Amino acid sequence: MRDHFEIRDADAAGRIGRLAVPRAGRTIETPALMPVINPNMLTIEPSRLESEFGVDILITNSYIIRQTERLRKQALDEGLHELLEFDGVIMTDSGSFQLSEYGEIDVTTEEIVQFQYDIGSDIGTPVDIPTPPNVSREQAEDDLLITEQALADAETIDVGEMLLNAPVQGSTYPELREQAGRHAATTDLDMFPIGAVVPLMNNYRYDELVEAVAASKRGLDADCPVHLFGAGHPMMLALAVALGCDLFDSAAYALYARAERYLTVSGTEQLDELDYFPCSCPICSEYTPEAIRAEDDETRERLLAEHNLHVTFEEIRRIKQAIRSGNLLELVDRRARGHPAMYDGYRALLDHAEQLEAEDPVSKGSFFYTSSESARRPEVLRHHERLDQLSTPDQLLLSEAGAPDSDEYDAAWRLVAPFGPFPRALSETYPFTAQVPDRPDREGQLAATEGVRWLVEANPDTEFTVAIDEWHADAIEELPERVRIKQIAEIGASTSTADGDS
Amino acid sequence: MRDHFEIRDADAAGRIGRLAVPRAGRTIETPALMPVINPNMLTIEPSRLESEFGVDILITNSYIIRQTERLRKQALDEGLHELLEFDGVIMTDSGSFQLSEYGEIDVTTEEIVQFQYDIGSDIGTPVDIPTPPNVSREQAEDDLLITEQALADAETIDVGEMLLNAPVQGSTYPELREQAGRHAATTDLDMFPIGAVVPLMNNYRYDELVEAVAASKRGLDADCPVHLFGAGHPMMLALAVALGCDLFDSAAYALYARAERYLTVSGTEQLDELDYFPCSCPICSEYTPEAIRAEDDETRERLLAEHNLHVTFEEIRRIKQAIRSGNLLELVDRRARGHPAMYDGYRALLDHAEQLEAEDPVSKGSFFYTSSESARRPEVLRHHERLDQLSTPDQLLLSEAGAPDSDEYDAAWRLVAPFGPFPRALSETYPFTAQVPDRPDREGQLAATEGVRWLVEANPDTEFTVAIDEWHADAIEELPERVRIKQIAEIGASTSTADGDS
Repeated sequence: MRDHFEIRDADAAGRIGRLAVPRAGRTIETPALMPVINPNMLTIEPSRLESEFGVDILITNSYIIRQTERLRKQALDEGLHELLEFDGVIMTDSGSFQLSEYGEIDVTTEEIVQFQYDIGSDIGTPVDIPTPPNVSREQAEDDLLITEQALADAETIDVGEMLLNAPVQGSTYPELREQAGRHAATTDLDMFPIGAVVPLMNNYRYDELVEAVAASKRGLDADCPVHLFGAGHPMMLALAVALGCDLFDSAAYALYARAERYLTVSGTEQLDELDYFPCSCPICSEYTPEAIRAEDDETRERLLAEHNLHVTFEEIRRIKQAIRSGNLLELVDRRARGHPAMYDGYRALLDHAEQLEAEDPVSKGSFFYTSSESARRPEVLRHHERLDQLSTPDQLLLSEAGAPDSDEYDAAWRLVAPFGPFPRALSETYPFTAQVPDRPDREGQLAATEGVRWLVEANPDTEFTVAIDEWHADAIEELPERVRIKQIAEIGASTSTADGDS
Repeated sequence: MRDHFEIRDADAAGRIGRLAVPRAGRTIETPALMPVINPNMLTIEPSRLESEFGVDILITNSYIIRQTERLRKQALDEGLHELLEFDGVIMTDSGSFQLSEYGEIDVTTEEIVQFQYDIGSDIGTPVDIPTPPNVSREQAEDDLLITEQALADAETIDVGEMLLNAPVQGSTYPELREQAGRHAATTDLDMFPIGAVVPLMNNYRYDELVEAVAASKRGLDADCPVHLFGAGHPMMLALAVALGCDLFDSAAYALYARAERYLTVSGTEQLDELDYFPCSCPICSEYTPEAIRAEDDETRERLLAEHNLHVTFEEIRRIKQAIRSGNLLELVDRRARGHPAMYDGYRALLDHAEQLEAEDPVSKGSFFYTSSESARRPEVLRHHERLDQLSTPDQLLLSEAGAPDSDEYDAAWRLVAPFGPFPRALSETYPFTAQVPDRPDREGQLAATEGVRWLVEANPDTEFTVAIDEWHADAIEELPERVRIKQIAEIGASTSTADGDS
């Protein structure tokens, strides 16, 4: 039990949590995005991040500080919070990134964790090995052993109230990611960054990102606060939160600004190619693209960085609100349309509907069916898996319309795509209060037939009749053979919509 | 030829236009959203709309002004622009709405158009009949005759440089809408509001809205500036623009604010139900929902109205940028996921792919395949319809992979979902530069087989071989019978992605 992290609200595998950071005397609400601060180059001063953007946690690199004489001295003398002029929580990285970039660094886990403690970091990091995607399995395993040793080393150090990261590696091998997650969760360490996923994101391999995260999450415990290391593009935050990630970090806001790149929730734009700003943040409300292009380099970079941060924090708030409202998966569905690779990522997420279902609340706001992918949501799966718990009479009608006039049937259940059959009495319970399209799609009806199949197989003694209107041929074909099929008109029922007004 | 409206850029049936309004001495860029000003109740002063929101056109109701002694006097004495303290373009409505609400009004088209002219309106409106949805065909036809007479009456009035609206009615009868559009376009009038669609929008009947608009547009000429009367919710603006609407008006920003409703691009929220603002406009950056709830009624209403306007103008800018970038349909795809009814509306739009295709530019930015609906886009249809213009050799290979090693074939074309086959030389032309998912979906492959079918039928003397990898069984089944099917591995080609790196 990790009592520094408390889950307050949930949707799919996403959650709103409270992360207590004792050394800072602060509690952080998650999902949270930590701006990455390059201690050598402050695009936006941390004090402004705090006052203007409400930033209460950021991340900086202890290795860079340690290697830079001036910074090291000041950090050791005055402390990290003084150095950065920031009162909130500061997480520090260890140099693992430099290790992966340059092949070696001249510091051990013991040394760098001690240094992080000495300069007053609130959350420190050991020297793990960020194994890139698609290395040999052997290398991924060897690297993982070193990472596991780094975690063991970190555990032995007395760091007082400082929290410690336990990075989860394993390259693109789901079994290794799961194993790494399981190992990390058994340590005494506190925070769980999923590492080395940046190359996947840079190459738009969002489906593989989903596989890596889903596997890591299977290994970790539900109460582990999870940090998707290096992830901060607003486009993919909802997808990552839906998988159960709690913390993100963004160097993108500043790095992209330097390259005149403008972040949006559906991708990245070049400032040069914009005639209008698709945003109403304070920067985009005040300036046109042309006006920002006319500014000097430094001002332009700062203004773009501010926009980039605004749009990112806006998405974090949108995600939190979606979790509260119970429509996080609807948001993920929207974000899936930002790029074909996000569409891949969304479908990869739905491949793990069973895993999401384990965390997903049983009741939330209204289910909105907004794409054929909605048919694969965890709520649909859950209903199907529970159909065998319902008892059925001898003669059961499953009808898209209202109850029939005749007493030919012992009961008339509703039949609604994508869920399938359910007793009329459940109409006002989640997810059957769903808003569904007037024009049903093939996948929704196929999912409904799947529900019929579960029910029919669980009740061999019941005779089933299905009353439908205009169904796709594929869906009708998938109905179990022993089900009688009638048209709505044949059963003499008052037609009614799926809204349940019958 | 309507020379006061010039189309500068286009995407699908959407366009960026310049509307010259001679009486105001102004040119308005479209798509444009006109805030509705209730002359009795200024939630946000027009002068602030101009200075802070960049509003250069608004709409107010001349009937209310005429019926209100104080307003009428001031408007006649000082003029409408003085009355509202607004320098931009002012369009005036005629009282048709009051007619539809209360059954009668005591003014004729001649009287109200003359009044609009007298008070200095820049764009005036006759008294048409806003026939609601689902009336009898007979009533819709009778009403339309009255509207057509009102247009004829308006034509006879000398209104100097004032532009005049020619409303398009016809209830939910597409043939009547088309007929009404055709009639309106033959008049000398200048602007073309599609009327009486508010009940459809209020009841989330977006697919029927699409039918009404598509039919009206078929009747109108391409150079008619089209106003979707009463439409201003940011959720549906992209859909309406993609159909070819240029002007919108929003009373929603103020009315919703009064009811503590908060607009977003994916629907409407109740202030009471928000814990976080999913927005970064100047209001949402400064306030939390809790802070706005704590304000007095008047301030709360004004702050919400300002947010509502910010998010609406943000969407207008986003739409314009999408037209410039050539990805308006990608934006519509995203907006379709806001509500099941928007999903219906999007699919209704794609039912008119042929109509969109007639306006859609032949080349634009990169086609993003982001949903199974992308397979039904006009670009796919256009390619299929032009396949018979390509000449084929005797032995033609259509391959998902690179060119084969053998010389068994006279040529090897590429085969890419959703387009189907095309000569390798076209790889760098639109739309074949498309970004497509790594995980192809069934609908994309079905569209590709449709392309194969068009090509095969146009070339009875060619022998076709198709080389595919992992295709959905449904798609394989739809391939024409005389096509030989091989696996990629069999043809000895270097596998390559759809990115065209072969």
